[in-house]
Amino acid sequence: MLTKFATPLAAQGDLAELVGLRHKHFILTLKAGAKFESHRGILLHNELIGKPWGSQVFSHLGAPFFLIQPLLADLLLDLPRSTQILYPKDIGFLLITLGIGPGKRIVEAGTGSGSMTIAAAFAVGAEGHVTTYEVREDMQNLARKNVERVGLAPRVDFKLRDIRAGMDETDADAFFLDVPNPWDYTRQVRLTLKPGGSLGTIVPTFNQVERLLPALRQDGFAFIEVCEILLRYYKPEPTRLRPVDRMVAHTGFLVLGRRIEPPLDERGIELARELGADRGDRDDSE
Amino acid sequence: MLTKFATPLAAQGDLAELVGLRHKHFILTLKAGAKFESHRGILLHNELIGKPWGSQVFSHLGAPFFLIQPLLADLLLDLPRSTQILYPKDIGFLLITLGIGPGKRIVEAGTGSGSMTIAAAFAVGAEGHVTTYEVREDMQNLARKNVERVGLAPRVDFKLRDIRAGMDETDADAFFLDVPNPWDYTRQVRLTLKPGGSLGTIVPTFNQVERLLPALRQDGFAFIEVCEILLRYYKPEPTRLRPVDRMVAHTGFLVLGRRIEPPLDERGIELARELGADRGDRDDSE
Amino acid sequence: MLTKFATPLAAQGDLAELVGLRHKHFILTLKAGAKFESHRGILLHNELIGKPWGSQVFSHLGAPFFLIQPLLADLLLDLPRSTQILYPKDIGFLLITLGIGPGKRIVEAGTGSGSMTIAAAFAVGAEGHVTTYEVREDMQNLARKNVERVGLAPRVDFKLRDIRAGMDETDADAFFLDVPNPWDYTRQVRLTLKPGGSLGTIVPTFNQVERLLPALRQDGFAFIEVCEILLRYYKPEPTRLRPVDRMVAHTGFLVLGRRIEPPLDERGIELARELGADRGDRDDSE
Amino acid sequence: MLTKFATPLAAQGDLAELVGLRHKHFILTLKAGAKFESHRGILLHNELIGKPWGSQVFSHLGAPFFLIQPLLADLLLDLPRSTQILYPKDIGFLLITLGIGPGKRIVEAGTGSGSMTIAAAFAVGAEGHVTTYEVREDMQNLARKNVERVGLAPRVDFKLRDIRAGMDETDADAFFLDVPNPWDYTRQVRLTLKPGGSLGTIVPTFNQVERLLPALRQDGFAFIEVCEILLRYYKPEPTRLRPVDRMVAHTGFLVLGRRIEPPLDERGIELARELGADRGDRDDSE
Repeated sequence: MLTKFATPLAAQGDLAELVGLRHKHFILTLKAGAKFESHRGILLHNELIGKPWGSQVFSHLGAPFFLIQPLLADLLLDLPRSTQILYPKDIGFLLITLGIGPGKRIVEAGTGSGSMTIAAAFAVGAEGHVTTYEVREDMQNLARKNVERVGLAPRVDFKLRDIRAGMDETDADAFFLDVPNPWDYTRQVRLTLKPGGSLGTIVPTFNQVERLLPALRQDGFAFIEVCEILLRYYKPEPTRLRPVDRMVAHTGFLVLGRRIEPPLDERGIELARELGADRGDRDDSE
Repeated sequence: MLTKFATPLAAQGDLAELVGLRHKHFILTLKAGAKFESHRGILLHNELIGKPWGSQVFSHLGAPFFLIQPLLADLLLDLPRSTQILYPKDIGFLLITLGIGPGKRIVEAGTGSGSMTIAAAFAVGAEGHVTTYEVREDMQNLARKNVERVGLAPRVDFKLRDIRAGMDETDADAFFLDVPNPWDYTRQVRLTLKPGGSLGTIVPTFNQVERLLPALRQDGFAFIEVCEILLRYYKPEPTRLRPVDRMVAHTGFLVLGRRIEPPLDERGIELARELGADRGDRDDSE
Repeated sequence: MLTKFATPLAAQGDLAELVGLRHKHFILTLKAGAKFESHRGILLHNELIGKPWGSQVFSHLGAPFFLIQPLLADLLLDLPRSTQILYPKDIGFLLITLGIGPGKRIVEAGTGSGSMTIAAAFAVGAEGHVTTYEVREDMQNLARKNVERVGLAPRVDFKLRDIRAGMDETDADAFFLDVPNPWDYTRQVRLTLKPGGSLGTIVPTFNQVERLLPALRQDGFAFIEVCEILLRYYKPEPTRLRPVDRMVAHTGFLVLGRRIEPPLDERGIELARELGADRGDRDDSE
Repeated sequence: MLTKFATPLAAQGDLAELVGLRHKHFILTLKAGAKFESHRGILLHNELIGKPWGSQVFSHLGAPFFLIQPLLADLLLDLPRSTQILYPKDIGFLLITLGIGPGKRIVEAGTGSGSMTIAAAFAVGAEGHVTTYEVREDMQNLARKNVERVGLAPRVDFKLRDIRAGMDETDADAFFLDVPNPWDYTRQVRLTLKPGGSLGTIVPTFNQVERLLPALRQDGFAFIEVCEILLRYYKPEPTRLRPVDRMVAHTGFLVLGRRIEPPLDERGIELARELGADRGDRDDSE
């Protein structure tokens, strides 16, 4: 499984990645007796098991591969998907700003291809938990397969449901809301989060940010931040050091906030406004 | 402690953050009977304990504060420091690309103010471990205090030593090397990492990248990547949505790599070169 | 005047710039017998006249200055202003994409502090012309003074008027529209431009882009482009080469288009749509 | 010719651009009796002459095109080339920061495909002049053809020569140096510029910036700036407003400076250093 103590040698049951020429790569689970086949030739899992990670191995056609242990970012970039991509640059920032770590309880909607499900399940460790809602059965099946492949299924509950009616969980540490219309669910998210819990969303367009912001304020979120992350790679050539020619220009705008308690006291109105919160004459008893 | 299951109410022993007007904020550990004093007035810890997180509280002068649980990013931005800052945008990306998560064993040099020490100790959970080397005693003392304040000391070993002579650890999952002259230590880092283990560094200048790259190649690292992360905030005003006026233009260049086994087989040379690795006629038996 | 053949020596009547320690700089027009005074001391214009450009000169207190001829970008950055800044990075791109050069006739609204007025008047040369509309008299006065100071007034007509009723000009080569509500004037701009003429605008918020785009389409513009320009400086230290710490994160979004003829032919509808144009059942005879 | 007063109707001798579906575009010079042929069909120039710019026209196969007058940026992006591209974003900024405008005398080396030659020749107008040096005859021929096509040849002198031996010109207003090893020519450039004249270069790698900076200082340049320009486009869809998915991540680093007079006076040393200049015990009498 992904998070156990890694042994220095590739072992039966380990996730492994083969990286060949021209950045061709394959992720597999090592199984004694199994066979890896690609158009670059065949490799027996038995030849891989017992090799030090980072070794070169060769197919029966002589094609070279590096045998490495896929790290979280490798797994995320390799994920079979049918939806918009969540990039490591965004996921890394979300984990750290939402406070997602060992032992935390995270709720997500929608599941999509499961990128954030996997990242969160990895980060919360064996003591933590992730519940993820999705309305499309085909998407859920894909995500479940993706999560199972990397050995994180025991930490994840998959629920097939429209979240308009709300979620079963309360007191979640953090919520990741990845749907086209997040403004329709900010009230439900609030009820799912513990007091002070954090919410993260990612939306591709400005129009969505525009609609989401008032909903967050109205439903008792403050500490609202909107940002985007740009990642630029450089060609690692020491004598011709320069950025690469082209880069990803946009993945999405991250919108972050925290559930606050309605600040009804007159003395707190200015502070509430400064942090993006509403007056807050809201009744949460519903 | 930082990673336990959060209760919805502020409790004795919890880390807490008070956020007041004009983004003034203070981090404290709740202790029955203690008193928080600032020029905005006094708050008794006893008044804070038992409050839901996200509540507004008021000093004896009527100054308003939000009481929140500081998340990892909050703690990192608040860290007392005497060195170059490590930003959440870079730390989040490093954690995810180096595969730092629950149960991992991480080695770091130098400790600096302890930003990455804290982030890694948070991420590895109670089953993981961080060892961090520093050559300056005053820096180590500051970092130790910082780590203790957030309750993560049990997961961290502090070592006061020049790493030129090598480290005690072997088979580390990942190494974070944060020194001005990383090229002087790539050989030592290699011996500390497990086969396939990952190395991350951050350096502020191009001249350093230029010198580091050949050292990485010579000392048996491949999968070398150089990148930088830019974070742009937007003003969260739905009717006047726009980026903020000014932003951080530069923190550092991230240089990433993995320990590989020397690829001596003729058939693997092209692949080794493509991934930034050297021929590799190196002897690791030393 | 700004555009005459520069002589290698500072001469009576030349615009000059004095740059002192800590990037303090002053722009003046050299006049025999005049005196430059600042808290760093006094310099007689007579001592400056006849000096080669690029020389060091000293005040009576011994404070050093470089004497240089201010270039267009220097003048723009130094402009006394009471409005949002137009930066050289944006102006340079606008000039080149709007085709503003020698001999062109340009119309602008509003004048603001006159940044673009000056840049356009510089670029169109003695054979070109700039007409600029402004509704606020104080702004116009400031801009007029700014334009006069740099010797470009003969190429500029200042008009004090709300452009809602339209402009006097027709067949302008290019139009620069710099108002908070550009969507209210796209019809008037169209009538001012020659067929195929180019329009440029700059707006700070996304909400403005959102409203401007449909207006452009409806009023017969195509070749619509929206972009932003980021400028990052590096510290020019060859042994510590790195970006500066902070940068301007946002000035405005540039929105560009061209007046097209209504494409009523059925065969052209797909192309019109692809380039951002409307069906175009518009009557321009009005 | 490019800079004459544009008439609202396409006329014999005009440069014209046909833009068809999927951004296919063609630049041509209108000639009575000539024929434009592409795989999308034939258009007779006679049908184009007399049409208002911005009109839709159709090939004999019914393929639609917009007929527009190409602006400077269009011409630059369309240039037949065999070298690294100079982008409008960089050219626009260079023109404005180097002070290239009507009446100026510009020297360039190397000519390359002629992008900057064309941009400078456009900007200096009929009273200005551009001299451009190139060492490769095939490049010069290509550039000459490119310059002739846009009607700017009368303003340009092409010289085929290695500039190591220096240039014929003196007192140039600005110099654009676009060669792989600019540090080898800073002394020659200095002698070509008038006192206070401006130098611009563009280099793709950091290693080149690193070598260029000391050469500039040693050869009497100050006001040294290093920067890069990033251009990000947005999809012009008002209801789904967002940046495009991918962008150009790098074209080159711009390095700018001005010829100064050697600051030998002790009192000026600090200022000289602050602006990137050397002590300057240089003898220019050579």
